Amino acid sequence: MALVEISKYKSFGGFQKVFSHKSKILGCEMKFGIYLPSQIEDKKLPVIYWLSGLTCSEANFIEKSGAQRYAQEYGVVIVNPDTSPRGLNISGDKDNWDFGEGAGFYVDATEEPWKKNYNMFSYVTKELIEIISTNFNVIEGTQSIMGHSMGGHGALICALKNPGLYQSVSAFAPICNPSKCAWGRKAFEGYLGPQETSNWSDWDATELVKVYNGPPLCLFIDQGAADKFLQEEQLLPNNLVEACKIAKVPIILNKREGYDHSYFYISSFIGEHIKHHSGYLQK
Amino acid sequence: MALVEISKYKSFGGFQKVFSHKSKILGCEMKFGIYLPSQIEDKKLPVIYWLSGLTCSEANFIEKSGAQRYAQEYGVVIVNPDTSPRGLNISGDKDNWDFGEGAGFYVDATEEPWKKNYNMFSYVTKELIEIISTNFNVIEGTQSIMGHSMGGHGALICALKNPGLYQSVSAFAPICNPSKCAWGRKAFEGYLGPQETSNWSDWDATELVKVYNGPPLCLFIDQGAADKFLQEEQLLPNNLVEACKIAKVPIILNKREGYDHSYFYISSFIGEHIKHHSGYLQK
Repeated sequence: MALVEISKYKSFGGFQKVFSHKSKILGCEMKFGIYLPSQIEDKKLPVIYWLSGLTCSEANFIEKSGAQRYAQEYGVVIVNPDTSPRGLNISGDKDNWDFGEGAGFYVDATEEPWKKNYNMFSYVTKELIEIISTNFNVIEGTQSIMGHSMGGHGALICALKNPGLYQSVSAFAPICNPSKCAWGRKAFEGYLGPQETSNWSDWDATELVKVYNGPPLCLFIDQGAADKFLQEEQLLPNNLVEACKIAKVPIILNKREGYDHSYFYISSFIGEHIKHHSGYLQK
Repeated sequence: MALVEISKYKSFGGFQKVFSHKSKILGCEMKFGIYLPSQIEDKKLPVIYWLSGLTCSEANFIEKSGAQRYAQEYGVVIVNPDTSPRGLNISGDKDNWDFGEGAGFYVDATEEPWKKNYNMFSYVTKELIEIISTNFNVIEGTQSIMGHSMGGHGALICALKNPGLYQSVSAFAPICNPSKCAWGRKAFEGYLGPQETSNWSDWDATELVKVYNGPPLCLFIDQGAADKFLQEEQLLPNNLVEACKIAKVPIILNKREGYDHSYFYISSFIGEHIKHHSGYLQK
């Protein structure tokens, strides 16, 4: 698991770096971003994982979120992986912006030709955590997860399917109920097979809260009220809220008037999210 | 001078917008970014102009600087124009990344085939100010200017050549002495003609401070100590400092250990610069 440092930029007193490594689980070279606050030179720090949305690589969050300022302020490492395997040239992996490369959907695929490589869920929750623990001065097991859109869905299912693995979870404009929206149905159909014969509910936050059985976990959800994908019913936060009510899983849904789906929206509230996680990570 | 709104994103409570308009001075369609803090709905606000560096359009600063947070905090509008005329298809305007499109150098060209259109100095200091005053709720004449690299050079010469027009000026890693560095010499040769027969010193901050004769003006300069273009002698801040000493023009040069030339560096200190200007603009 040798890491190759691809880039290194001083930022807000710490360093924003990008590394590549050969992923066993994905069977390809993968890149991730990591922000290392200056405090890491003196002590172990907790980690927040960020999962990006459709079409993103590791670059978008690093360049546009402004998260570094808050990571330095609160003394947390932020790790952000790419959104899918890359460079495998699987037939069809570049034909769609919402399926294949840039659109791994944070599931473990069961269908051909995806099942060998498209296992972003295991990559994020196992291999990446191990790489970070092994190679950086972090507090092992003290970590949270957040994400945006497809990555918000990813953060929610990673937390709900691994009770206790993450101290807290949050999401910006997550795809809350992928079994019921066009993006999710397309991805699940391709990676998991037809709904009738597959366990889509194992990968859908709205279904997973209904069977969540673990330490107390509050879902911290952020949603721009002017988000066109909300209006197009790709995100369906109300379905998640309803399921949480029934399952008695606490959820906070912050609706932000006038905000859309972009990084201009994310950067406006990323500080609040990092502060939120920091409260759980530094108890 | 009709403005066309190209995009609009809510950001930190205000709006980040991009407009296009037909520029008389440049003879082409031009775009600029403008951040409008929420306070502008109730009162007139001062303006800070940002001039970007080589290869940039209006997008880089908007997406990567994180300036919106501070503009909202201090209640200032930020306007950032493109770095050159676009779409004119002048022979050679796309052959170089450091000359022609994306590299207007903020001068008024005197040489063919550039002199008709490549007049970014007049565009920034006259036409753009008029457009902003006419179309937005700003305090006329209460403005500052800052920029990065080629745009830092631009900010310095705009302020030094127009005593009193800007309340304050600052620059990140500016090209301080373009007559003496490769980037500057190439641009000046092309836009202004050979050094022997042209007045390069009229467009060079290090020369202009020597003849500055106007209201007190302190040059607030920021420079990453690990900037490779500093090492390659493209920026030459010490020449400007020496000239300021002789001319008794106050200058502050902040050297930032470990920082390079990127937007990771800019975003780390843009808040300090906006605070600095705000002190002058809100007296």
